Amino acid sequence: MSEQELPVEELARAARAASRVMATAATDQKNAVLRCLKEKLEARRAEIIEANEADMRAAAENSVAANLVKRLSFNSAKIDSRIRSLEKIAALPDPVGSVISSRQCENGMAAARVRVPLGVIFMVYEARPHVTVNAGSFCLKSGNACILRGGSEARRCNTVLGRLWRESLEAAGLPEDAVQVIAGSHEEVEALLQEDELIDLVIPRGGEKLIHSVTEKSKIPVLKHFAGVCHVYIDADADPAAAIEIALDSKCLMPAVCNAMETVVVHAGFAPHLPALVEAFRSQGVEVRGCEGVRKAVPDVIPAMEEDWTAEYLDLIVSIRMVPDTAAAIDHINTYGSHHTDTIVTRAGAAAAEQFTSEVDSGVVLVNASTMFCDGESLGMGAEIGISTDKIHARGPMGLEELTSYKFVIQGNGHTMGDYSEAHKEEAAS
Amino acid sequence: MSEQELPVEELARAARAASRVMATAATDQKNAVLRCLKEKLEARRAEIIEANEADMRAAAENSVAANLVKRLSFNSAKIDSRIRSLEKIAALPDPVGSVISSRQCENGMAAARVRVPLGVIFMVYEARPHVTVNAGSFCLKSGNACILRGGSEARRCNTVLGRLWRESLEAAGLPEDAVQVIAGSHEEVEALLQEDELIDLVIPRGGEKLIHSVTEKSKIPVLKHFAGVCHVYIDADADPAAAIEIALDSKCLMPAVCNAMETVVVHAGFAPHLPALVEAFRSQGVEVRGCEGVRKAVPDVIPAMEEDWTAEYLDLIVSIRMVPDTAAAIDHINTYGSHHTDTIVTRAGAAAAEQFTSEVDSGVVLVNASTMFCDGESLGMGAEIGISTDKIHARGPMGLEELTSYKFVIQGNGHTMGDYSEAHKEEAAS
Repeated sequence: MSEQELPVEELARAARAASRVMATAATDQKNAVLRCLKEKLEARRAEIIEANEADMRAAAENSVAANLVKRLSFNSAKIDSRIRSLEKIAALPDPVGSVISSRQCENGMAAARVRVPLGVIFMVYEARPHVTVNAGSFCLKSGNACILRGGSEARRCNTVLGRLWRESLEAAGLPEDAVQVIAGSHEEVEALLQEDELIDLVIPRGGEKLIHSVTEKSKIPVLKHFAGVCHVYIDADADPAAAIEIALDSKCLMPAVCNAMETVVVHAGFAPHLPALVEAFRSQGVEVRGCEGVRKAVPDVIPAMEEDWTAEYLDLIVSIRMVPDTAAAIDHINTYGSHHTDTIVTRAGAAAAEQFTSEVDSGVVLVNASTMFCDGESLGMGAEIGISTDKIHARGPMGLEELTSYKFVIQGNGHTMGDYSEAHKEEAAS
Repeated sequence: MSEQELPVEELARAARAASRVMATAATDQKNAVLRCLKEKLEARRAEIIEANEADMRAAAENSVAANLVKRLSFNSAKIDSRIRSLEKIAALPDPVGSVISSRQCENGMAAARVRVPLGVIFMVYEARPHVTVNAGSFCLKSGNACILRGGSEARRCNTVLGRLWRESLEAAGLPEDAVQVIAGSHEEVEALLQEDELIDLVIPRGGEKLIHSVTEKSKIPVLKHFAGVCHVYIDADADPAAAIEIALDSKCLMPAVCNAMETVVVHAGFAPHLPALVEAFRSQGVEVRGCEGVRKAVPDVIPAMEEDWTAEYLDLIVSIRMVPDTAAAIDHINTYGSHHTDTIVTRAGAAAAEQFTSEVDSGVVLVNASTMFCDGESLGMGAEIGISTDKIHARGPMGLEELTSYKFVIQGNGHTMGDYSEAHKEEAAS
């Protein structure tokens, strides 16, 4: 955060001006910023941790919930993790200027679709100071300028990180305003959301309330990262051991992330293996809730209510629903799920896999793999800035390319359209 | 338009239900709808023209401006043009299911990014009944359901076209609600713009006022087709004859379309050729306005005011601005233009061309070619549904692919993330 923060419109203008320079900045220069920041995270570790600890103390004193205080932590291990990630992002290919597609036109012109940055990205997020490093590096490497507004609880730590961003940009000879870390009151955030001439995209990250409120108020396009109500569907002929392993991994490895699984949908033909599945969950401390069909197979399962099918527990709780066939499973997932990440476990080569991947309307659909693989790393992005639940622009895990737009570049040789037929003119004008 | 129109939420729900079927409809079945509609446009030509003529009479009686009445026309020639375009769209490749990219992961999983429809598209447009055919066919061929709300002046003609859409969908065995043509009051349009769970994208086409009003009211993402303040920049060493031809073609061929040129920016070194350029414009009936520099070279040019640089004349008027170098030209274009379509005319292989295409922040940038080539046909889309001035999702001319999203399809073999290192877990959770 700049020591004296600019008025809202001025800071948006500064971001726009910086974005013009960033759009054509050399890859080496952008990487130099990332590596400089990396060194500063190392060299100024004590200062960062001190600020973060002050934030955490203040949060605890203000009776902020314990799990939120935990998310606020930016300790030495987390700093190490960011240092590794900065090196990784510096090593990724620069998406700017890459040719998405090209063609030679019949009339002799050459046309190419070339990747360009979006311009100015405004991130609004809660607590978690590591986003200040992560989102900033994604925006910068993809040639964008950004305005980063973290939670007020992380104010002290973000102030330090904002200063390090400025110092690193300056050291590399790029505009300091390319990454602006701001505190910004709610009123200022709302005012920024009106600057659709100066800001190109808003990415809110946090609870559903934050995202809804940003979407409602914004005149700027919003890329949403909503909840994940993710499923594992176990087909009748699935290998029971593999099915149970995938279900456990999807639920228990990181229960609090958005691609953790919340509901197992099982084919009635899998019923004989339900006791083993329930037992496996319980051995990991998972509370199991089930529909009537499931309770027939395992009577001591807690009855699931209608609201269980739409619940994002983010906790060691799972609901299980029994269905007569794959079509019913797909229908359940498309109706109650959040179109995020869903898996089918089935026999290799089964027709159900094809039906599932084609009909389940989710950003990531998997066959015989854990929902944990909804992950930028696994999908070749090297890393990810988030997981979009939108269909517009980017869907699923977002890497560097997902923060770009494109332009058409056409090379002619004195070409005019006038030679074209009247029919074409009429067509084009109609 | 359905004979009795459904309440807003019901028609959005019907569109969502239809979109589920359309998403996996076979290419042949979708093409059958287009060809059936084509036959119906032929067979029911008299009925369509009669309805259109009634609309035009009513508009004239209601003192609608003459140019708007003209835009309302859907005469026999325009019907022929739509018939050709339906055949063309039927012949285009189906974007749904095509693999955008794929990779083999180190862990043995295969991951692909596969094109899927967006879902439900809501088009809001003014007058022009041909959009009812054109937008409907693009949405349908790309596997989307759509709600088409044309101008109230075109109500009678659109009612007939809506009926033909329903009949064609039914004949091909696809849901009739896949293309719903509605009249819809302003209140109903506003209510539809709140249905972000049922509608995926809104495309307003028409005047700036319409687009602003839709953007302001919509909870759904909006893809904007704003004005084109397009430029031809003539470099010092441009071939004078080619430069004049490109400038004339860009201005005069179709002055009322969004990619028609409004301002010529000339390098001071081109000044000796300014009299010829002005003369050429005047010989085509174009009124010429110029900055002081231009008026020094051609004294009888009308002085251009500041507002001329941002004007979208859409008429036989042109403004000319003199600049000292390419950087100043780019600055003028990025500052006053609308980031739509801009051309540089320069010597083949000139460094200025590279600078121009890289630094001008527009959807389409051309070298030595008329702005008329901002055109889906020229860019290999076969045809276009419109020209986006957004950077989010689609930019520039939009064809079928631009009406799609994607999903990641991952094929595993019992893969779980649990085997991964603790470092990875920490990374992912942070």
